[in-house]
Amino acid sequence: MEGVRPLDLLNESKGKRVLVELKNGKQFIGKLVSFDIHINTVLEEAQEMENGEIKRNLGKIFLRGDTIIMISPSE
Amino acid sequence: MEGVRPLDLLNESKGKRVLVELKNGKQFIGKLVSFDIHINTVLEEAQEMENGEIKRNLGKIFLRGDTIIMISPSE
Amino acid sequence: MEGVRPLDLLNESKGKRVLVELKNGKQFIGKLVSFDIHINTVLEEAQEMENGEIKRNLGKIFLRGDTIIMISPSE
Amino acid sequence: MEGVRPLDLLNESKGKRVLVELKNGKQFIGKLVSFDIHINTVLEEAQEMENGEIKRNLGKIFLRGDTIIMISPSE
Amino acid sequence: MEGVRPLDLLNESKGKRVLVELKNGKQFIGKLVSFDIHINTVLEEAQEMENGEIKRNLGKIFLRGDTIIMISPSE
Amino acid sequence: MEGVRPLDLLNESKGKRVLVELKNGKQFIGKLVSFDIHINTVLEEAQEMENGEIKRNLGKIFLRGDTIIMISPSE
Amino acid sequence: MEGVRPLDLLNESKGKRVLVELKNGKQFIGKLVSFDIHINTVLEEAQEMENGEIKRNLGKIFLRGDTIIMISPSE
Repeated sequence: MEGVRPLDLLNESKGKRVLVELKNGKQFIGKLVSFDIHINTVLEEAQEMENGEIKRNLGKIFLRGDTIIMISPSE
Repeated sequence: MEGVRPLDLLNESKGKRVLVELKNGKQFIGKLVSFDIHINTVLEEAQEMENGEIKRNLGKIFLRGDTIIMISPSE
Repeated sequence: MEGVRPLDLLNESKGKRVLVELKNGKQFIGKLVSFDIHINTVLEEAQEMENGEIKRNLGKIFLRGDTIIMISPSE
Repeated sequence: MEGVRPLDLLNESKGKRVLVELKNGKQFIGKLVSFDIHINTVLEEAQEMENGEIKRNLGKIFLRGDTIIMISPSE
Repeated sequence: MEGVRPLDLLNESKGKRVLVELKNGKQFIGKLVSFDIHINTVLEEAQEMENGEIKRNLGKIFLRGDTIIMISPSE
Repeated sequence: MEGVRPLDLLNESKGKRVLVELKNGKQFIGKLVSFDIHINTVLEEAQEMENGEIKRNLGKIFLRGDTIIMISPSE
Repeated sequence: MEGVRPLDLLNESKGKRVLVELKNGKQFIGKLVSFDIHINTVLEEAQEMENGEIKRNLGKIFLRGDTIIMISPSE
């Protein structure tokens, strides 16, 4: 398990759909395009979710890393 | 997908209209003029939005990066 | 548009009246005297505003940058 | 006791199930895959817990370190 | 206006009475003794104010910079 | 009193029971195993306390430093 | 007044009783043993105060600097 790092999960998830939860409770689902060491993250085909339903279609979004709590691959 | 970074989306959005959401829940739409690595951002022809309607016309605004949650190109 | 940076808007606004909004919801209008990279900001002839009306005349004020959400030139 | 450091506990817990509590009160249980000096953490077979019961099965999750309060090995 | 910096206002205010407002809403008036780049600030003959009236006489106080919103010379 | 530093108290407390209070109001008692300059802290035989009574037995816990308000040796 | 710095007040207060107020509203009185540049602070013979009365006797306490709003010598 040496050498495994948290950002590896994000690298493996590029091009796949992920769930992103923010500190304000908002949830977004979209295809992970890119991220950096601050966890600034870009999604495409992004949707804001509320109680398991689509609230808004947003297209491409930039999320500032310090607002993110969790990122989870959904496929 | 190597070399794609989150700030690339912001670079591509310069001169275009973007939606910016802040930690306090406020939403602004305006033409993206500039940003820096802290995500300090300048919009022009900026409007504060509330429930999908224009609340205030603000012209040029400087937004401090650490208050920003999301930036999304709207065109 | 190369080379345009967010602080340029603040530099252009020196000596002019600006609106400053803080994280606690307070609004100040005053003449922008100076700012630094932390967005620490000094206004003169500053007034605290509430619902579009003057609440307090404050003269010169120093605002710590990390409390600022937005700065917008008002002229 | 010289040389013992807080991250040693996390290193010993790799591959084992841990309880993670976040600033927003959420609790996750999962197998600790990796962490870094910011305490960014990846769990697999992760479950969100509420009042001692499973709320959601999440698979792999990346948790941003600055949202974490406590990590405790549960085996 | 070149070379004017926000801390200049604080330097000019040394030895004079200033109003200091904190993030928790508290207000202090006192003679500005010293400050540093973090805006850590020492006042003497300090008074905590509430609704324009003196709530507590505190003598010398050290205020941690990151709790300060505004400093304004009151003379 | 020259050379006395805050972390000295934590060093002296290694292997002894300490009370730790967090920003969210939670209290933990346990044997202090280790800490670092961020005040990341590991306790063993840790118990979460509520109103002076044991709420949970937790064994070993890692507490992220930036959530800690106070550490006090209890022996 | 050149060369006077905020930490000078804390240095002068070593070995004397000080009042410390935290961001969560808690107040502690105790003898100042040590502090560092983060304002991490150790008190001895510390007491938690509430409405001017002693709530708890705590002995030695380590307070993490970023939770501190104010330190004031009480003698």
